[in-house]
Amino acid sequence: MAEITSYNFTVQPQDVDFTLRASVSSIISYMLNVAGEDADRKGFGVASLQGHSYTWVLSRLAVEITTQPKQYTNIEVDTWVNEFNRLSSTRNFRMRQGEELCATGVSQWCMLDMESRQVVDMTKLKDVYERAMVAEPSPIAMPARLRAIEAQSESSRPVVYSDIDFNRHVNTLRYINLMFDTLPIDIIEKNRGLRMDINFISEALYGEVLTIGSAQEGDVWLFEVSSNSGKTLCRARIEFK
Amino acid sequence: MAEITSYNFTVQPQDVDFTLRASVSSIISYMLNVAGEDADRKGFGVASLQGHSYTWVLSRLAVEITTQPKQYTNIEVDTWVNEFNRLSSTRNFRMRQGEELCATGVSQWCMLDMESRQVVDMTKLKDVYERAMVAEPSPIAMPARLRAIEAQSESSRPVVYSDIDFNRHVNTLRYINLMFDTLPIDIIEKNRGLRMDINFISEALYGEVLTIGSAQEGDVWLFEVSSNSGKTLCRARIEFK
Repeated sequence: MAEITSYNFTVQPQDVDFTLRASVSSIISYMLNVAGEDADRKGFGVASLQGHSYTWVLSRLAVEITTQPKQYTNIEVDTWVNEFNRLSSTRNFRMRQGEELCATGVSQWCMLDMESRQVVDMTKLKDVYERAMVAEPSPIAMPARLRAIEAQSESSRPVVYSDIDFNRHVNTLRYINLMFDTLPIDIIEKNRGLRMDINFISEALYGEVLTIGSAQEGDVWLFEVSSNSGKTLCRARIEFK
Repeated sequence: MAEITSYNFTVQPQDVDFTLRASVSSIISYMLNVAGEDADRKGFGVASLQGHSYTWVLSRLAVEITTQPKQYTNIEVDTWVNEFNRLSSTRNFRMRQGEELCATGVSQWCMLDMESRQVVDMTKLKDVYERAMVAEPSPIAMPARLRAIEAQSESSRPVVYSDIDFNRHVNTLRYINLMFDTLPIDIIEKNRGLRMDINFISEALYGEVLTIGSAQEGDVWLFEVSSNSGKTLCRARIEFK
């Protein structure tokens, strides 16, 4: 058993949007950075896994954001893993500004063998994992499993250099910006709280063409990103409060 | 007279490209963050100017990059102002990783009255400025004045949410990514040094449509970004070594 670990950040100018508050993709970026750093510290990060040619893949994520912290504020992100099984491990996040809770998150990860491109049985890391588990429940409901949408509008563009990460795949955070870019800007400006569920389904490579479809039902926005190769890449659901 | 001031950064995962090195736009982002922070500390930052409804506008920038620092490395950015006149002030940068020089930069700024949208005579801030000047020459040649290009290829897209800053104008760094996105990816992967000159000419607002034109002459790439409103927004020249 382990303890909840906390990491500090200052909200940098490149992480805020036109409202001078951290964008949703930046808030998620802080959480994912903490996930990487905490996994490394506890002996199951990408650095240690790559000795086995394994890597972590984010499969689902849910975040609830009540306050988007402003530029230059100091934030603290608490993180802990509280569950794992053969196929998936659950990592949780709580983002705080002093005593005030700004955002919470739950992420589900699987482990991929980079040679066979197959999912790895995670009980192989049982010993390391059991030492890292924290007996604290997830702060919000688990990420929903999202179904195909009937898009009310669509736009397309190729994957470019600034979209891709070291795997030459479209970066997780870029999908989130692509979705927010299709929203009416007033909704983003006036946002006073939201929940976002995201399912990552396949990877898009440099050179593929992305299509971003969206549909609205009241305060709920649904998104599906697909590729010209026929793959569904990513789905999301945002509910504004 | 003042001294050269240094600021520390760690290269974060969101600042590296697929080569796991800080992208050119991230390197420039570190320099511009330092410019903002140093101006604030020395009493002529946006925070103090806004008492007068003035703001800083970056008009030209040149950077020479020999090494793009890798993810998680610690870098130090030295900065100093060594010249100002009625219309323009010159701020310099040196980015170091330990003793090794990674990148150098020279930027030219003018001061804008946000109410009249006119350039302000900077000799109004003469006292503050003279205390902040450092008697150290610029590390590289001043930014070139760039002429209109004859584009060999062009692409267009609207300004979206994730492009804009608090003025609702396209962010400086976004122009740089838009230009790099048009380059053959091999050139970026194999980059072992470059000089980039940029001229910022007009601002693009949310809702305008950007056209990115480019032309190649050997190791030199020329760019011009314009808007559907007829304005030239930005020009750049990149010379790879």
